[in-house]
Amino acid sequence: MASGTLLYSQSGGVTAVINATASGVITEARARKIKVLAARNGILGALREELVDTSKESAAAIRGLAHTPGGAFGSCRYKLKSVEADRAKYERLLQVFKAHDVRYFLYNGGNDSADTANKVSKLAAEFGYPLTCIGVPKTIDNDLAVTDCCPGFGSAAKYTAVSVREAALDVAAMAETSTKVFVYEAMGRHAGWLAAAAGLAGNGPDEAPHLILFPERAYDEADFLKQVQKVVKRVGYCVVVASEGIQTADGRFVADSGGGKDSFGHTQLGGVASYLAGKVKDALGYKVHWTLPDYLQRSARHIASKTDVDQALAVGKAAVQFALAGRNATMPVIERTSDNPYRWKIGSAPLDKVANHEKMFPKGFIRKDGYGITDKARTYLEPLIRGEAYPPYGKDGLPNYVTLKNTQVKKKLPKWEG
Amino acid sequence: MASGTLLYSQSGGVTAVINATASGVITEARARKIKVLAARNGILGALREELVDTSKESAAAIRGLAHTPGGAFGSCRYKLKSVEADRAKYERLLQVFKAHDVRYFLYNGGNDSADTANKVSKLAAEFGYPLTCIGVPKTIDNDLAVTDCCPGFGSAAKYTAVSVREAALDVAAMAETSTKVFVYEAMGRHAGWLAAAAGLAGNGPDEAPHLILFPERAYDEADFLKQVQKVVKRVGYCVVVASEGIQTADGRFVADSGGGKDSFGHTQLGGVASYLAGKVKDALGYKVHWTLPDYLQRSARHIASKTDVDQALAVGKAAVQFALAGRNATMPVIERTSDNPYRWKIGSAPLDKVANHEKMFPKGFIRKDGYGITDKARTYLEPLIRGEAYPPYGKDGLPNYVTLKNTQVKKKLPKWEG
Repeated sequence: MASGTLLYSQSGGVTAVINATASGVITEARARKIKVLAARNGILGALREELVDTSKESAAAIRGLAHTPGGAFGSCRYKLKSVEADRAKYERLLQVFKAHDVRYFLYNGGNDSADTANKVSKLAAEFGYPLTCIGVPKTIDNDLAVTDCCPGFGSAAKYTAVSVREAALDVAAMAETSTKVFVYEAMGRHAGWLAAAAGLAGNGPDEAPHLILFPERAYDEADFLKQVQKVVKRVGYCVVVASEGIQTADGRFVADSGGGKDSFGHTQLGGVASYLAGKVKDALGYKVHWTLPDYLQRSARHIASKTDVDQALAVGKAAVQFALAGRNATMPVIERTSDNPYRWKIGSAPLDKVANHEKMFPKGFIRKDGYGITDKARTYLEPLIRGEAYPPYGKDGLPNYVTLKNTQVKKKLPKWEG
Repeated sequence: MASGTLLYSQSGGVTAVINATASGVITEARARKIKVLAARNGILGALREELVDTSKESAAAIRGLAHTPGGAFGSCRYKLKSVEADRAKYERLLQVFKAHDVRYFLYNGGNDSADTANKVSKLAAEFGYPLTCIGVPKTIDNDLAVTDCCPGFGSAAKYTAVSVREAALDVAAMAETSTKVFVYEAMGRHAGWLAAAAGLAGNGPDEAPHLILFPERAYDEADFLKQVQKVVKRVGYCVVVASEGIQTADGRFVADSGGGKDSFGHTQLGGVASYLAGKVKDALGYKVHWTLPDYLQRSARHIASKTDVDQALAVGKAAVQFALAGRNATMPVIERTSDNPYRWKIGSAPLDKVANHEKMFPKGFIRKDGYGITDKARTYLEPLIRGEAYPPYGKDGLPNYVTLKNTQVKKKLPKWEG
């Protein structure tokens, strides 16, 4: 075994393929005889010294990770602030790293995680502790800077496009006497990437989705209702895809309009789709159905994109190679080298170019009328949902997802009083 | 071409596999040289004399129907009343049948449709018009009498079990710092079949789904919240599957508690999952996510059950054979001949045994505590979700679903003034 341990940690909302990245990391590290610990529940496990010994997992389990959704070691929503504000936590991290001879820290997450990895690397340098910090990209929101796309997005995008295509066939069959409008709520609070992916489900103005509502365009209720009516009159039904993050011109989130409190002061959880469905029903009188897929869209490994799975594995493998090559404070990213045929390779980005930036959905990707995607958007999006990468199924008709043992190594430090 | 035309019609909510039945019907009829017309938008198309000439569709299109969700000819929610109340409509149907030499009428739907087919057959006899009426089973609700299971259910059941297993892995990864409770709303207003199918996703009390709420058991809010808290304390998180049809002991639908009107009198569309999520959040303070898959669960052909697809094709084929054999007023049904190994064959049922009956979810299928399924339920349910039957995908990463030409034959009668 080479000297120095690698610590891998998952952060933020999980995806259908973040475990594929974990599988890529562990497989590559095993090939290079590097010991891999994984933090339980993300950075919290590192602070609490709750570290999983991945060498206890079988080769079959690590292969199985590549087709298992969720976050196999646990993730967390826990953001470290600046080194000044959270100095004790950063120092604790370094203590834990030292205690377990961690010389490589791989943080698998979005831009917050890139920021944390970057800060840890600076503090390690300040303390003269030799540590290579690598950010590993992950988010279904596709809002990470520098990288052409982000592992996790392609599979959620494929789920979205396939689901919208299927539900639209249902609505088309029912529209004559029943449901005429269907509203699908997509994740992606600040950027319209996932809602846009639904646009791949159809071609031309008469194919679903007929209307996409992007967070990048102000929601204009009167115009929206007019468009719905126009589509129903022309096509017979209307499929709407709305991003959860749509806002009115004055910056109010539409999602906050649905829900609220009922007359007894109890919480009513709503959302964009339920709000829009109510408006369509009241204003136009059409029968409406709506869906909120929520976590289903980011955990649907059964309909993962092969491109996405391949890229998730590749960034894991590259992260280990970057770490061993001492490429501190960098992130392996996806570089698109050709649209047609689609080709990509692994590139690299300095963490400070990724940290706390948000890649917005380009203006040129939204159709002039504001309710659909352009050909440019299709050219970008389509390769990302290409290919099927089915998990194996058991005789019981269910996917064989793996559960790890997650055996923790013995603690060496006093309990963290964080 | 043999004498006499066969008229096929789809009715009620569509499924992921009702078109597989249509494919089975048309393929078998073509092999036997029988002309097949299909009514546009269900029985409405028969009344309006909007009849599709299926001979205009290519063999590839008819094969493609077997993997296309939705209802390819259009369906409808349109119930004929008794012959006394709706006599003019029944007579109009017979006129249309006569005008197009329809001697076989295949009505693909649930118990309402079986009832209609039955009545049409009686009226034809009264008028001395030689007509063989066959009901063809279809419903995701699985509430059809006589048949062991109903085409459409197995695929929706598989979608449910797979989605719950996947989302549960997501929740498990997030629970330490974020979402602790996840609520999944399953279709099935009167019977708990689909909610029960979610139970296949896990085994034992610690695996998701931890709590299933059946319409057959009165919803007791205090007890439910106590159970959620117990599971969260023991497992760290709790996955709840609720049937849209759950009711309190006094017969009030819980779905009607969510939603309602906001303070401006506007419609707020809610549902069971949103209601339960709000209660959990208020009473227990846990972060909650919830999903309403709605039409996605019945149109998800991409995750169809092979058992279900096979049975959907088989009832279509058998329906043609029944028709040509003159087995009037019957329905081909699924007979289970063995649980282990699972074996089934096509049986038959008289339409009056199917019409207007509802097969309830057996008491012995619900665990004593009311929140899960028994081994007996597993034995029944599991074979129905077995096997994968993926649709073909294009290079664009999307399933190749077919759209028919739906060329209508020339009308021969005056317009229907219904």
